[in-house]
Amino acid sequence: MKLTILFGGASFEHEISIVSAITIKEKLASFDLSFIFCDGDHRFYLIDAKKMKSTTFSNGKHKKMSELTLTNGGFIQKSFFGSTLHTNTILNLIHGGDGEDGSIASLLDFFDIKYIGPRKEACTFSYDKRYTKYLCNALGVKSVEYEVCHKNEAANLRLSMPVIVKPASLGSSIGVSIVKDESNFDYALDTAFEYDDAVLVEPFIVGVKEYNLAGYMVGGKIHFSIVEEPQKEEFLDFEKKYMDFSRSEQASRADISEELINKLKSNFEKVYRGMFEGALIRCDFFVVHGEVLLNEINPIPGSMANYLFEDFEQVIRELSNNIPDASRVKVSYEYIDSISSAKGK
Amino acid sequence: MKLTILFGGASFEHEISIVSAITIKEKLASFDLSFIFCDGDHRFYLIDAKKMKSTTFSNGKHKKMSELTLTNGGFIQKSFFGSTLHTNTILNLIHGGDGEDGSIASLLDFFDIKYIGPRKEACTFSYDKRYTKYLCNALGVKSVEYEVCHKNEAANLRLSMPVIVKPASLGSSIGVSIVKDESNFDYALDTAFEYDDAVLVEPFIVGVKEYNLAGYMVGGKIHFSIVEEPQKEEFLDFEKKYMDFSRSEQASRADISEELINKLKSNFEKVYRGMFEGALIRCDFFVVHGEVLLNEINPIPGSMANYLFEDFEQVIRELSNNIPDASRVKVSYEYIDSISSAKGK
Repeated sequence: MKLTILFGGASFEHEISIVSAITIKEKLASFDLSFIFCDGDHRFYLIDAKKMKSTTFSNGKHKKMSELTLTNGGFIQKSFFGSTLHTNTILNLIHGGDGEDGSIASLLDFFDIKYIGPRKEACTFSYDKRYTKYLCNALGVKSVEYEVCHKNEAANLRLSMPVIVKPASLGSSIGVSIVKDESNFDYALDTAFEYDDAVLVEPFIVGVKEYNLAGYMVGGKIHFSIVEEPQKEEFLDFEKKYMDFSRSEQASRADISEELINKLKSNFEKVYRGMFEGALIRCDFFVVHGEVLLNEINPIPGSMANYLFEDFEQVIRELSNNIPDASRVKVSYEYIDSISSAKGK
Repeated sequence: MKLTILFGGASFEHEISIVSAITIKEKLASFDLSFIFCDGDHRFYLIDAKKMKSTTFSNGKHKKMSELTLTNGGFIQKSFFGSTLHTNTILNLIHGGDGEDGSIASLLDFFDIKYIGPRKEACTFSYDKRYTKYLCNALGVKSVEYEVCHKNEAANLRLSMPVIVKPASLGSSIGVSIVKDESNFDYALDTAFEYDDAVLVEPFIVGVKEYNLAGYMVGGKIHFSIVEEPQKEEFLDFEKKYMDFSRSEQASRADISEELINKLKSNFEKVYRGMFEGALIRCDFFVVHGEVLLNEINPIPGSMANYLFEDFEQVIRELSNNIPDASRVKVSYEYIDSISSAKGK
C-alpha cells in the first residue's frame, strides 16, 4: 500500500515529529512509503527513505533534496526534465502547531489531497485545551475543572494548590508546571505565557489514575485500541515525552474492569463521532473516585499510538480506505445569469 | 493605500462574494486596489479592475487573465518574462465555504501573507452554528435555545412549533425553513440536510426585534458601528440576501435606548475579544422581553457591512494597520543535537 508520511512543521514539536516519522517507518515496513518534510520555513521536501534519520534534518541536508510545492491534487516536484505530481494519500504526522492546529488539514483539503488526520474543526477543538472543555461541556463529557488566565491581566485564581499550569494550545509538556505552593504560581504563569497568551489552570490531582485509549472510525463503527495505564513519573518532561514519541513496542493492557473499559470507550465515542472522522486519536482519561474525566485529546498521537494496537499496519490500511468524502461545492451562476438576462445584457 | 480583495471560492455563496467585491470596489474608491478571484476549482486569478463585473466570472472570462499560485510571502504570477510576487495585504471577502470555514485563513497564515479577516479558530466558532452555541455558553452570552438533528438519525424534537430549521454550517438563508405546522417538519429537515449532515432547530420567535452591530479591534479597543434594525420580511430568501450583499448606502440608526445599545456592545465584546482579532464582524442579535440573545456571528459580513459605518475607508485603513502578529515558531534541533552528540555521531 502506498502512503506518504508528512512530518516536521514550524512548531515546538518539530523534533518530536521527526522522531515519530522515523518510528512509523519501522512500523509500516510492508508499505510503499514516501516522506515529505515541512521545514521551519514552510518549505516542503521529498525525503529519500534511506536518509530518514534525525541528523538529516538537524544538519540541514534535506535542503539538497527535491523541493515540492502544493498544487491541486498533490505535491508537485519540478525538475529540469519536467514535473511529477505526487498524489499518494498523506498521513499527517506533524505534531503540535501546523499539523494539529488545522493548518495542514486546511491546505490538504483545499488542494483536494486525501489524508489521514484530524479535519480543521477537529483541530480547533483539540489543539486549544479551552476549546476541548467547550466541546466536553456541550457533549456531556466530564473533564477536569479549570480556570483561564490571560496575559497582561490579573489572575484571580479560585482554585487552591496544588494546581497544574498549561499553555492553552501546546501539546507535549512544554511550558507546563505543577505548582504546590502559591509563591511559585506567578513564575509558572510566566513560563506558560512564553508559549501562549492564554493559560489553563487545573487542580493537580495527586495519585490520579490515568488511562489512554486510541481509536478510529471504520464504516460508522469505532475500532478501539487496548487501554493502557501509562507508566509515568508524576509528570512527563520534554525529554521523556521525546522518548515517548519513538515508542514501538506493544504496550500491555491496563488491569481494569470491563465496566471501566466500556465507560472509557463510551466517552471516547461521544468525543469522536461527528468530529474526528478520518483521524486516529488518543484520548487520555483520568479516573477520580470512579468517575471518568477526559484530560486531553491527541488528534495526532506520538508515533500514531502504534504501541496500543496489535496489528498497526492493518490500522493504517483501514484508515486509508475510510477517508471522509470532501467533495467541493459546485459553483453556479444562476443569480448572476438571471439578473444579466433581466438587464438584457 | 494598497489592498487586494480576495473573493469567489468554491461555495454556495460564490456569487454573493462577487457582488460583495464589486460593492467594496466602489466603497474604497481612494484605495489602490487589486483583485484576486478564487474560482470553483480553487484556482486563483488576478482580475483586471476594469473587468470587475459579475458577467466576467459567469462567462468564464477570468480564465483568460493571469493565474496566480500561493507561495511563501504572497501570490506569485509567472509569465514568459519572469515572475512577480504580489505581497499586498489581503481583504478576505470569500463568504461562506472556503472563506468563512477557516481554509483561506489557514492558507494565508501558512504562507505568511497579511490579511484582514477571521483567523481559523474564529472561523470554526462562527461558520458552524452549533459551535457558536458552544462559544456563547462558555462565555456567558445568551443565545436562542436549540436542538441538533443528524442525517440518518431519528429526530426527537422537544421544541414545539413554530421552529426555524437551518443547516449547521451555511451562511445566507440557503436551506433554511420556517416550520409552522408539524406536518412540514420532515420536509424542512430534508431540505436542510441537502446542505449539511447536521441541522439546527430553534424556536421561531414571532415578532422578535432584531438588531445588527458590527465592529473591529484597534489597539485593544473595539470600534463599533451604528446599531441597525434591519428592515426585513419575516425571513430573507436568497434573492433578497443577494441584494443585501450589494448594499452601499449608509443605514439609519435604530431608535433604541443607550442602555440597550450598551448591552449589545457588551455582548459583542465578549464574543469578539480573544477570538476575532484581525476581523470586522457583524453580530446579529435578537431582543426578547428585554433580554439580548446572540443570533449569528458574520465573520465576513456582506460587503463588509460598509453601510453601518460613517467612514468606511477609515475602517479598512485601521484594520489594515492592526493585523495580528502571526510570527512563526523558530524550529530548534536541541534534542536531536544532544542525542547525536551523546551517541558520538
